[in-house]
Amino acid sequence: MHAANRRIVALAGGVGGAKLADGLAYHCRTNLTIIGNVADDLELWGLRICPDLDTVMYTLAGLANPTTGWGVIDDTFAMLDMLATYGEETWFKLGDKDTATHILRSHWLRQGMRLTEVTQRLTRALGIEATLLPVTDDDVRTIVQTDEGELDFQTYFVARRCEPVLKSVHFRGIERATLTPEVKATIEEASLVVICPSNPFVSIAPILAVENLRARLSLPSPPSLVAKR
Amino acid sequence: MHAANRRIVALAGGVGGAKLADGLAYHCRTNLTIIGNVADDLELWGLRICPDLDTVMYTLAGLANPTTGWGVIDDTFAMLDMLATYGEETWFKLGDKDTATHILRSHWLRQGMRLTEVTQRLTRALGIEATLLPVTDDDVRTIVQTDEGELDFQTYFVARRCEPVLKSVHFRGIERATLTPEVKATIEEASLVVICPSNPFVSIAPILAVENLRARLSLPSPPSLVAKR
Repeated sequence: MHAANRRIVALAGGVGGAKLADGLAYHCRTNLTIIGNVADDLELWGLRICPDLDTVMYTLAGLANPTTGWGVIDDTFAMLDMLATYGEETWFKLGDKDTATHILRSHWLRQGMRLTEVTQRLTRALGIEATLLPVTDDDVRTIVQTDEGELDFQTYFVARRCEPVLKSVHFRGIERATLTPEVKATIEEASLVVICPSNPFVSIAPILAVENLRARLSLPSPPSLVAKR
Repeated sequence: MHAANRRIVALAGGVGGAKLADGLAYHCRTNLTIIGNVADDLELWGLRICPDLDTVMYTLAGLANPTTGWGVIDDTFAMLDMLATYGEETWFKLGDKDTATHILRSHWLRQGMRLTEVTQRLTRALGIEATLLPVTDDDVRTIVQTDEGELDFQTYFVARRCEPVLKSVHFRGIERATLTPEVKATIEEASLVVICPSNPFVSIAPILAVENLRARLSLPSPPSLVAKR
């Protein structure tokens, strides 16, 4: 097959996955499609935040913060400081530039655009040549069972810094979630599917669990989602 | 009447009105209620922006920008710069701290709170002792007829810098808008109603036009809303 026609697909979560995706994008350019995780998405103050998609997007746009691994380089936190002045909890560190992404995404979603279309519009505006696709347009949310009860992923991971003892993980909404037409077509046409170095339990697993993408890719059974301490 | 029981009411638009309201607030403290204009409100990217209420609020909180007359002192514009990066029009200068106000307000309104309650919550959080009330919880919008057609007020005033030739002004939604229970009670109990030095055509008129507040205050007929150049 001619290199120009090779369609490379990368499955990626956040920081680690984004780095490999960035290397692939450098070589494959428009021939790369990244399928991203949405199970750690959250809503804060009516803003839809997609940490994994955004980390991939900012990394490929050359805007990622190399120190934190999340957010936009040289971002500021004036908006968040003002939210704190209003008495709001601000454990999720929304930078000012980052907030523009969430404002636009939320606005476009409320106008009826699919997350796939929103993501396309944002990545194109940032000059990204590769295609970034959320694995699904449906709501899937990672929920962790802990010794302190059920927590959504960002509360466990960011607000509580993984301190509650983890018992199990499940993906709320996964049974009803469907792969997008774009993801299905991409998988059909793929010459190569790369599973990027992202967390297997909370980044890769919720991608592979949508409409049994795992089976479509002829992958073996998932790793155990029950962790021990 | 004992001074402690004197209820002072101020009708105020933006910058000029906010300054007198601030002076009144200094002397009257919790005895002051400011009834604010909402006819120059706008929605951008799903954010409900109330320029006049915010100018009064920031002024009374000691947060107003003394140079521009609008927005928050020492505010930054990283969020807006990022919106521009995404290709959005950014003629309305949303500061980062200011954006927190609009995010919270929009979120609370979508949750079903009235604008009156939202404004109460914001002003209390900023330590404002006076009460700030939108004249109505309904949508009223100043629309200007110009030689270039009909424009909403902020497009005419900010985006087009008042360049189109003004023919007339009307307040869309004014016929259906009702005074809030809080405004009615405040007017009933007022010892003194002060009309602050705000624009009579686009700040004071749309306050007085709601449910014929003008007549409730036994005021003479309105000034002509037809301007000449």
